[in-house]
Amino acid sequence: MRLDVVTIFPEYLAPLNVSLVGKAAARGQLDVRIHDLRSWTHDRHNTVDDTPYGGGPGMVMKPEPWGEALDEIIASGDGDAPVIVVPTPSGRPFTQELAVELSAKPWLVFTPARYEGIDRRVIEEYADRCDLREVSVGDYVLAGGEAPVLVMVEAIARLLPGVLGNAASHQDDSFAPGPMANLLEGPVYTKPPEWRGRGIPEVLLSGHHGKIARWRRDEAFRRTTANRPELIEGADPAAYDKKDREILVALGWVRDEDGGWRPAGSRFGRSQQAVEE
Amino acid sequence: MRLDVVTIFPEYLAPLNVSLVGKAAARGQLDVRIHDLRSWTHDRHNTVDDTPYGGGPGMVMKPEPWGEALDEIIASGDGDAPVIVVPTPSGRPFTQELAVELSAKPWLVFTPARYEGIDRRVIEEYADRCDLREVSVGDYVLAGGEAPVLVMVEAIARLLPGVLGNAASHQDDSFAPGPMANLLEGPVYTKPPEWRGRGIPEVLLSGHHGKIARWRRDEAFRRTTANRPELIEGADPAAYDKKDREILVALGWVRDEDGGWRPAGSRFGRSQQAVEE
Repeated sequence: MRLDVVTIFPEYLAPLNVSLVGKAAARGQLDVRIHDLRSWTHDRHNTVDDTPYGGGPGMVMKPEPWGEALDEIIASGDGDAPVIVVPTPSGRPFTQELAVELSAKPWLVFTPARYEGIDRRVIEEYADRCDLREVSVGDYVLAGGEAPVLVMVEAIARLLPGVLGNAASHQDDSFAPGPMANLLEGPVYTKPPEWRGRGIPEVLLSGHHGKIARWRRDEAFRRTTANRPELIEGADPAAYDKKDREILVALGWVRDEDGGWRPAGSRFGRSQQAVEE
Repeated sequence: MRLDVVTIFPEYLAPLNVSLVGKAAARGQLDVRIHDLRSWTHDRHNTVDDTPYGGGPGMVMKPEPWGEALDEIIASGDGDAPVIVVPTPSGRPFTQELAVELSAKPWLVFTPARYEGIDRRVIEEYADRCDLREVSVGDYVLAGGEAPVLVMVEAIARLLPGVLGNAASHQDDSFAPGPMANLLEGPVYTKPPEWRGRGIPEVLLSGHHGKIARWRRDEAFRRTTANRPELIEGADPAAYDKKDREILVALGWVRDEDGGWRPAGSRFGRSQQAVEE
């Protein structure tokens, strides 16, 4: 997979040389190319921003350097256009599903912006010419798109064949498709069996695989109902077996008329904006 | 504000020396201390992980090095305990609201983990002794908590007084409290007025502040209904004025019996799991 990143802070992307992504690049599984946007400016101040039309605080990134940068990068390929990934808090959410989709693409170009963002015409121009995605890694505001690029590249790279040591690790991931879809992973323990007076759950020492799997799934329900109830509310209730339904009831959840689960006392299955009866 | 980060990849945190966070540290507004977890190991392999109790793929971070690291860091303070922030996909969502809350704390300690996570007893031990938050930056799986720490530190640091040049920039942020709550920012433009045959919306040249503000708000509704309809559905409809209601209707949205807005054709105001009538 080829990855290009265009930024005014190339040094921010240094972590791509470290750890899993760095090792994958060293093995040749990833071809990572970091570009300084300012190398496509032509004035002696290397200007990349200007004041916004219509007024207001902050600066907007000028279209010309981005246009020249993207043209040159696209032309450096073998003819097939890359997928362009634009990090922005106004985008669609970056999810594990999107990470899986992007991990199957041969070439991604990331365009982390600073200030108030990139002139809109750049987005429109390349959305006409490429598969362009505006994505948000979460509901918070950052100083620039570089940290989101580190997040996305790591989420995507670890899904590439051979990058993670043990492919089986994927299947138990929180948010992984399959039995753990819509469930957060529960607690994990390792040696010693006692630490500062704290033991470990006995079932984990039982050697009984079925009981251990069930305990882990119960703990996943416990964690998910506590931290992310909307994931349970949004899940397909047909995916739950008898024991799943038992733990949900034990955790104080009830079934809707339409079969979905919700915390007792809420309505419409929407715990966050629950309407009291 | 003091920030400590304990990690087995100290070099991953190098971006904290760059850009806004790096400048704030250089000015003395932030006291950033990166610690190598392995310096609290005592075997010659500097072991930080072991196999999980109960079996399964992956490794779990051992409790002893984390316990020694956190004890020493806590003891280095002036008596008040830090807030401990544990990045994990199983945590509660990191939101702009949480960024604002954490930006008011004098001392944060981040504990980015690798592998399958940290032995649960460490979390329980320090949750008993400190204000400990398990937080997730988004619904995707990473190789470690370091990238989320970069995200969180940037979101928090830019809210500190004097760190961003222009405090007014905060108020128009996506997710900022106030009039833009639950709205994504719309498009931005800067010079030149024409680029590759693409112009800019005429209203932005009108000099009419009221019309420009209204156009920007309409564009914010347009973007939000397209990319994040659940934000509109979850918003307080009393926050919308007559023009807001007009643009929502123009975008094909209708009002529920309980006053909330939903896309026409959906039910219960839940566009993502919409039930057809």
